[in-house]
Amino acid sequence: MKGPKSLSALMERLQSLPGVGRKTAERLAFHILKSTPEDVAALARALLDVKEKVRLCSICHSITETDPCSICADGQRDHGQVCVVEEPHDVYSIERIGEFRGVYHVLMGALSPLDGVGPEELKIAELVARVEKGDVREVIVATNPNVEGEATAMYLAKILKPANTLVTRIARGLPMGGDLEYADEVTLSKALGGRLKM
Amino acid sequence: MKGPKSLSALMERLQSLPGVGRKTAERLAFHILKSTPEDVAALARALLDVKEKVRLCSICHSITETDPCSICADGQRDHGQVCVVEEPHDVYSIERIGEFRGVYHVLMGALSPLDGVGPEELKIAELVARVEKGDVREVIVATNPNVEGEATAMYLAKILKPANTLVTRIARGLPMGGDLEYADEVTLSKALGGRLKM
Repeated sequence: MKGPKSLSALMERLQSLPGVGRKTAERLAFHILKSTPEDVAALARALLDVKEKVRLCSICHSITETDPCSICADGQRDHGQVCVVEEPHDVYSIERIGEFRGVYHVLMGALSPLDGVGPEELKIAELVARVEKGDVREVIVATNPNVEGEATAMYLAKILKPANTLVTRIARGLPMGGDLEYADEVTLSKALGGRLKM
Repeated sequence: MKGPKSLSALMERLQSLPGVGRKTAERLAFHILKSTPEDVAALARALLDVKEKVRLCSICHSITETDPCSICADGQRDHGQVCVVEEPHDVYSIERIGEFRGVYHVLMGALSPLDGVGPEELKIAELVARVEKGDVREVIVATNPNVEGEATAMYLAKILKPANTLVTRIARGLPMGGDLEYADEVTLSKALGGRLKM
């Protein structure tokens, strides 16, 4: 497209965002053109703000503007229960259900030897240190139920064994609203193996 | 979601973009968080640049950084053939096929009495003035083939009649790759009525 140079430049930038192709970039760019200068300036400011202000919490490695983060600093929460997740956004997925009252530990990824991600690349040593300090009653491993997440969970269970802390794994099974007919074999096998007394 | 304030602010801003819901805004915001500061600064800059540099061409009302725009300033193009479109991005849709060698006229919308858009809100007087100057051989009406676009086309044909210029309308019919079985009645009727000798 041979349009104004700044418009092409914006489209190119927008296309580097996840899930944004040529058509979407075009639609967004034309929307920006029609927006008020104030709205565009506010969007640009919001983008820069996030990069300037957001850092990682020194305790749980989740994203925060203050250190420690609001969850780690919350005396009302149960600091003896640590939920281990792969990414900062996983914290918000769990917070959204509004039930978990413990704290978090973000690994910043999952073990993936093929991509060169070993235990040293993750915040595993930091987790072990937190557990060894002694006030952690339970470590809930909430890594993703895929190959990397499962491998990471197994590794954590092994490495935390000497600490003698309860290590649990979130349940894998049929999703609510799901259908036995369409469930894959591995999920069904996990659902059967993880059955609970009613 | 109770995350860092600047992150929530960014998500809210992103959600005001077309086609961006809560989930997409979250995904984009976390992508921004992971991007390098340089990339984010470049995106913010591109947003501001577009608003600062892009204006409307005083001849065709398409978007441009220079006035007149590169198409209106192009001596190689046929200035006697004016293609009328609703929005600036329609110009780029037609330019993409790379066949049209005439120039454009952007109406900045279509007639829509219910939304309070009458002829005065559109660049119709400007089109009439261009045609009355006398060097326009043909006006190709390429407004959208929907209620507003069709009404606008009919209005243009009527108002341009005294100028004695050829006014044509782009063909409405079955899209290439389409299927008679799935075509709606109006399209099929237009396709039949607009048949051409082979």
